[in-house]
Order: sequence, then structure tokens, then C-alpha cells
Amino acid sequence: MKFNLIYCFIAINISFSFAQENDSVLIRKIYSHHLTNSNSYENLRELCKGVGNRLSGSENAEKAVKWAFEKLKSEKSADTVYLQEVTVPVWKRHKEEAFITKNKQKLAIYALGGSVATPENGISANIIEVKTYEELAQIPENEIKGKIVFINHQINKTNINTFDSYRENGKYRWRGASEAGAKGAAAVIIKSLTLKEDDEPHTGSMSYKDSLVKIPAAAISWKSAEILSKALKEDKNIQVQLLLKCETLKDVLSYNVIAEIKGSLYPNEIIVAGGHLDSWDKGEGAHDDGTGVVQSFEILRTFKLLNIKPERTIRVVAFMNEENGLRGGKKLAEVSKIKKEKIIAGIESDAGGYSPRGFFMEGSEEQVKKVKAYSHLFKPYNLHSFDRVGSGSDVEPLKDFGALLMELEVDSQRYFDLHHTSNDVFEEVNKRELELGSASITAMVYLISKYGF
Amino acid sequence: MKFNLIYCFIAINISFSFAQENDSVLIRKIYSHHLTNSNSYENLRELCKGVGNRLSGSENAEKAVKWAFEKLKSEKSADTVYLQEVTVPVWKRHKEEAFITKNKQKLAIYALGGSVATPENGISANIIEVKTYEELAQIPENEIKGKIVFINHQINKTNINTFDSYRENGKYRWRGASEAGAKGAAAVIIKSLTLKEDDEPHTGSMSYKDSLVKIPAAAISWKSAEILSKALKEDKNIQVQLLLKCETLKDVLSYNVIAEIKGSLYPNEIIVAGGHLDSWDKGEGAHDDGTGVVQSFEILRTFKLLNIKPERTIRVVAFMNEENGLRGGKKLAEVSKIKKEKIIAGIESDAGGYSPRGFFMEGSEEQVKKVKAYSHLFKPYNLHSFDRVGSGSDVEPLKDFGALLMELEVDSQRYFDLHHTSNDVFEEVNKRELELGSASITAMVYLISKYGF
Repeated sequence: MKFNLIYCFIAINISFSFAQENDSVLIRKIYSHHLTNSNSYENLRELCKGVGNRLSGSENAEKAVKWAFEKLKSEKSADTVYLQEVTVPVWKRHKEEAFITKNKQKLAIYALGGSVATPENGISANIIEVKTYEELAQIPENEIKGKIVFINHQINKTNINTFDSYRENGKYRWRGASEAGAKGAAAVIIKSLTLKEDDEPHTGSMSYKDSLVKIPAAAISWKSAEILSKALKEDKNIQVQLLLKCETLKDVLSYNVIAEIKGSLYPNEIIVAGGHLDSWDKGEGAHDDGTGVVQSFEILRTFKLLNIKPERTIRVVAFMNEENGLRGGKKLAEVSKIKKEKIIAGIESDAGGYSPRGFFMEGSEEQVKKVKAYSHLFKPYNLHSFDRVGSGSDVEPLKDFGALLMELEVDSQRYFDLHHTSNDVFEEVNKRELELGSASITAMVYLISKYGF
Repeated sequence: MKFNLIYCFIAINISFSFAQENDSVLIRKIYSHHLTNSNSYENLRELCKGVGNRLSGSENAEKAVKWAFEKLKSEKSADTVYLQEVTVPVWKRHKEEAFITKNKQKLAIYALGGSVATPENGISANIIEVKTYEELAQIPENEIKGKIVFINHQINKTNINTFDSYRENGKYRWRGASEAGAKGAAAVIIKSLTLKEDDEPHTGSMSYKDSLVKIPAAAISWKSAEILSKALKEDKNIQVQLLLKCETLKDVLSYNVIAEIKGSLYPNEIIVAGGHLDSWDKGEGAHDDGTGVVQSFEILRTFKLLNIKPERTIRVVAFMNEENGLRGGKKLAEVSKIKKEKIIAGIESDAGGYSPRGFFMEGSEEQVKKVKAYSHLFKPYNLHSFDRVGSGSDVEPLKDFGALLMELEVDSQRYFDLHHTSNDVFEEVNKRELELGSASITAMVYLISKYGF
């Protein structure tokens, strides 16, 4: 018996290391395919240049749905391609401008997404500048009433991962209108969540507490924030004229676009992988999140061209409405719950199409341990980060399924230079970086589809 | 005695881990300084926009020497700033053009650096297209004589580190004129060493075997190579008109620019750190290698502003003539040899100002082991690669000193999109990526200056 046990142990070890060798060979093939034969860059060009930016509920968002559906159909990589209905909010930006009244000095601003409009002729008001909510709390209501609160908070530059700074400072964009509105402000202007010292404002979503008066909210560029702050130092009584024309309309019907390859052995075990199809209404939504969408499409194309039959089902999703509602991600989870599906993993790429660094993960200790054991297979491709906790917004609602949630981690230095701005365009995406990202996701999907949890 | 030995062992361990903790705190300060208070980005702007490109021996190269010297003086971070004489070659580009004779289709080309000129009116000749030297070897001399050899070799896209592809394929640029000239060709056109499919040629250095006739050599853009290859498929008898006006003049005097902080404990042990000041004569030499120069300057400024007194001497060098002669690097080693200096390490940044990934190293097993033991201190900054062998060209001549040679490893995906082209300009450099690179070099210099070898 002893001999047999040892023999058995050796046999298992050999078969395991053989599997690992096979995996490393196949993963090399996956990366080579992406670097030489991927459609992702040309698909991204079509989405950015052919459709353009695509805020949920806009005409362009519907064009994007059509484009994605037809693209997935025409590539013939999936067993099924279908649309999943999602009701989405509709917010429209018409006009936005701001200037210092006394010298007509223009300030570069964008309305924040979801903001109410100013009165027809705008607001002319004095400015209360604060750097933090703590500072705002110190100022009595009567000093704020009727004025424009200017939250001039500089995003932290010392974090190495820029998403850490975004998360730390996001509260100013998200809650600024509520915090200032609660003290009677007429409007709020937030310094953009940017790491680039230029004159481009960064839009993004914000919220109102339902019980409060809703006040107009805008983001101001780094340079214009400097100008305004300097002008206030010279004369604290200057006024700013702020005009926002924007409106919230009735919800409309839109769609998640979904494509699947059925698993050969465990068709009921589903791996969700995707990016979001909607974007803000500036630029072309290239890094946010055109890249995530085209990378996900390439997973299916790789399986087909390399003739890999996944053992578990791969469901690629181009999510709708990540930016201002997350209704697509929620809808997918809701429908899957009704159908009692078994979703084992959700992987998103929504941090820009930059050089991959690893994967963020969120799941049980066992799941995370299993995936970390694959990390050596990614070392030749310069992926080194498997320790950070996190996941993509659209796949987060899959938590209830006990799924391992993941997000591709990429080099984050450039992202907040252009995030939610008119500079987020196709030309800012590097072909190889995009391809290395999609290869990494494909390789991870391959491993999970083979070994499950 | 036994007790004492154990006690002693514990004491050493505590002091070592305390040192490591101190190091990690100081390294965090170094990174924070670079991300919030560095001069490197504005220095790079001055070098790129104020001086521009700066081929050895050109007027601009001398402007760059003056700029570097005055910058180092004015920053007052070094104990001494001085110039080291270097005799450099002078090659000048005056005019370059190429087109397919029969339809006047323009082809985007640049003369390779060091090429001889064509006759005054250019060369009109038939084309022999090959993809490799093996193919060229198959063609009889009489078929090549008097024709233009077109080496249409596609750089390998599947390597993850693009420098591996550059090294593999560099032989076509470097030896193309000799290989084609040996078989009687009138000129050679090489497909650019590029990973971007655009219409921009990439220049760079080439060589002639002295015994052979020297023939004109040019690089052609990716797109124009496609056009020419397609035209040849349609009609192999087409001719190309090639005109290169360029010349090699007499050597002139130039300089390495050097700044030093004397070591407080071991002033005779010297760490060399630098980048090269010269560039090719296209674009602004931003990534190649303005970034390496300004990153090196920031090492000194960091030591001064953070009040770190290095125990060993730090010598920062802006090398002259890396691109077409390496005479600055050789000169530094030569002078140090005469002075019997003890150079313990040479670190260069010459792979572009992109996000740092780690360090290439070349040295004794012991040296490499010692530096690898620091790698955990760099993990919070996303540096993960300490296993690759290599070093910077300018510090390579320091091998004879038994010095550990190193080069900052950065994310390499974008470099060969713009290397040696008119697109290598300031705007292509990301401020944070540049700063993270200089912080990494500073931290490494700090550790070596503290612990030596």
C-alpha cells in the first residue's frame, strides 16, 4: 500500500505539472494571438469614431447597442448573441458656461451628470471657497446662503495607484451638491478629479439627497480652479456667473448586449466577463470603457480561432448604464437570480486600456487562493499584482451568487488625465497595451473555465 | 558564550529590520517628493522645447551642454558641477526623399545616421525586396548589382518586452548597408524598427565595414514599406528614385556634464547614475533620452531637499554621444581608469520615461543578490522585475571596474512607436510616469550609497 500511495502521489504531481505546462503553452498562444491577430483595436476605432460617446438613453447609446450586437453576430465566435432589456435614466446636457463677472474671465466647467439646471439666465453669486467638508462645516449657514460653494480640493498625488486617490476624493463630486445645498448654497463647483494640470474639466456622476433642495453642480478644470482661487485671494467679493442647461427626462428602454459560448462539460457554471458600453457624453469613451468592451469581445474570438472548447460557459457582456445608474449590472444579476443560474466568476475590464499589471479580486479565501496559484503563469507577461482587493462595478451585483469577482488591474498613471473628459479618445489608446490587457483576461477566463472553483 | 552569541544574533537582526523599516520610510518620502515636488517635468520641457533635438556635434548639442551645466549649477544640489571633454563625430542630414518613379508615389524615408549621400541627383534603380539576410544570401550578385535592396523585415510583435524585438531585429539597420553593399547594391532601404503601423520612418545608427564600398542607407516607414511591397507585387520592374543629402564632417569637441555629491563616509566609492544628453536629429529626444537626463538630475535635488547625506559619492552624468559613437560613456570610464577611481555601480535610465517595472542588472552573483534583496522595498511602488540581465549603454564601459551595472526597466509597450522619430516629443511623456521612474532610481541610488557592496 505504501508503494501504491507514493506512486499515486507522483502520478498526480506529474499530471498536475503537465497540465501547468500545457496551460503555459496555451497561454503563450493566447498572448501571441492577441499581439498579432486581434480585432480589438479596429473594433475600438469603430466604436469611438463610428459611434462616439454614448451616454445611457442617448441616440448614440442605441447605436452602440446595435453596433455591439451586429459585431458579435458577424464575428461568429459565440453560440448565442442576445439583448437583455434594461430601463435606463436619461439626462441631457445642452449648454454650460461660467465666468468671473467683473472681468469676464472664462472658467472651464462641465455640468456634473444628473445635475439640475440653473435658472434660464444662470446664477450670479459670490463664492465661498473651501478645500474640505471639514472646512465647509465650520462656516455658518448665513454666510453660505445664496452663494456658490467652490470645493477646491486637490486630489492626492502621492498614492501610487491613482484609483486610490479617486476613491478617497470621489466624495466631493458625489456628495458636494448635497453638502453645499444643505447649507443653502445656490450652486456648487467642484475641482475636477484630475491628476493633469490642464484646462479640461472632468464630468461624472453625482447624487442628491431626496429630502433636500437640488442645486446645480459643475466640475471645474485644474487651471480654472487655480484662476478662480487666485482671483478670490485678490478680491473675496468677486462674483461668478454660472449657467447650466441640462435636464432629466423619463427613463427609456436600453440593453445589455450578451454573447455566450456554452461550456462543454459544465454548461451550467457561468463565467461573466465584460466591460460597459455606455460612456459619459464627452470625448469618445475610449478608455472608459470602449477598451473593456472590445477586450471582452476578443475573448470569444480567441476561443474560436485557437479552437479552445471551454468546459464551463463563458458569457461576455457589454453592460449598459455603468456610468449613471449601474442598471445593466444590476439587471444581469436580477435575471440570473430568477433563472437560478450558477455564476462562478465575474471579471470586468474598466480601468482603462493600459498595460496590464494583475487582477483585483474579491471572493472567498479559497477562490482567491486558487486564482493566486495561477499567478506564475502570468509572470512572463509582466503581471505581478494579485493581492489587491476589488472588482468591477458591473460585476459587483454578482456577489450574491458567491462568484469570485475580479477586475483587470492596469497601469493607472494616465487614466485620471483624461477620465470623463473630451480627451478620452481612440488616439489615446495604445494598440499593444490594449491587446496585452485582453490577452490577460482571456488567459484568466481560460483557466477558470478549465478548473472552476 | 552561548547566550552572548544568541544575544548578538538577535541584536543584529533587530538592527537590520530597524534599518529596513527606516529605509522603507525614507523611500516613501522619496516617492512622495518626486510625485509632488519634482523639477523633472519642467526641466524636460525646457530641454525639449528650449533646446530641441541635439545630435552630437550639432549646435543644439552644445546648447544642451550649456543648459545642463547651468541647470545643475542653479539647482545647487551638487558639491561640484563640471564638464568632461569628449571628442564626438559630426554627421549632418540635409535632405532626403524617395518615390516610385513611374507614378511619383512618395515614400516616407529618413537617412540612417552615418549614411553616405547619394549622388547629387539621387539614384534611380530597380528594387530587390527581401525579408531576411538568409533570403538575400540566396540571390546571386549579378541580380543585385546596381539595384536598391529593400529589407522588408517585420519586427517581432510577440515579445512582451519590446526591447527584445529591437535587439533581435536591430541587425537589419546596423548591418544592412554592408550586407547589401557586399553584393554590389547601389543603396539599401530598411523597414523601420517600429511597432506602430504609421507613416513615420525611424532613423538610428548604422555601420560600414571599412573594406567595403559605402552605399547610402535609409529607413522607410511601416506604411510606405507596405506601399512599396505592394507595388513590387504588381510590377517587379518598378524603379525607385532615392535622394539622400547628408555628410560626415570632422570630429569636434563636446562634453559629458557631471555633478557630484561627495560621500560622507566612503567618498572614494562612486555610484554613477545618468542618461544621455544627445539625441537623434528628429523630434525632441524626449523619451530618448531627455527623460533619463532630467530623472538623473532629480536624484541630487532629492538628496538635498530631503537632507540625505550619502555615505558614498554620487556622480550624476549627462552623457554625450550615446546615439552614434558612445564616446561619452567610454570617455568617463577611460578618465576614471587613469584616476584609479573605485566605481561600484553604474545606473542608467535610457528606455523611455514610462512607468517603472524594475531594474536590469549585470554584475557578480554577490552584487546582484544584494540588490535583489531590496526588491521588497520597491513592491509598494509596483516594481516587480529584478531578474532580467542588462544595463545601459553608457555605463557598460564601467564593467572593467567590477561595478554593478543597471538600467531602469520601464513599461516598454509605447517606446518603439516613437523611438528615433519626429514623434518623440515632450507631449508624449506623462508627468507621473516620469516622476515614478526618477523616484525609483533615486531610491536605488540611496540604498547602494548606504550599503555599498
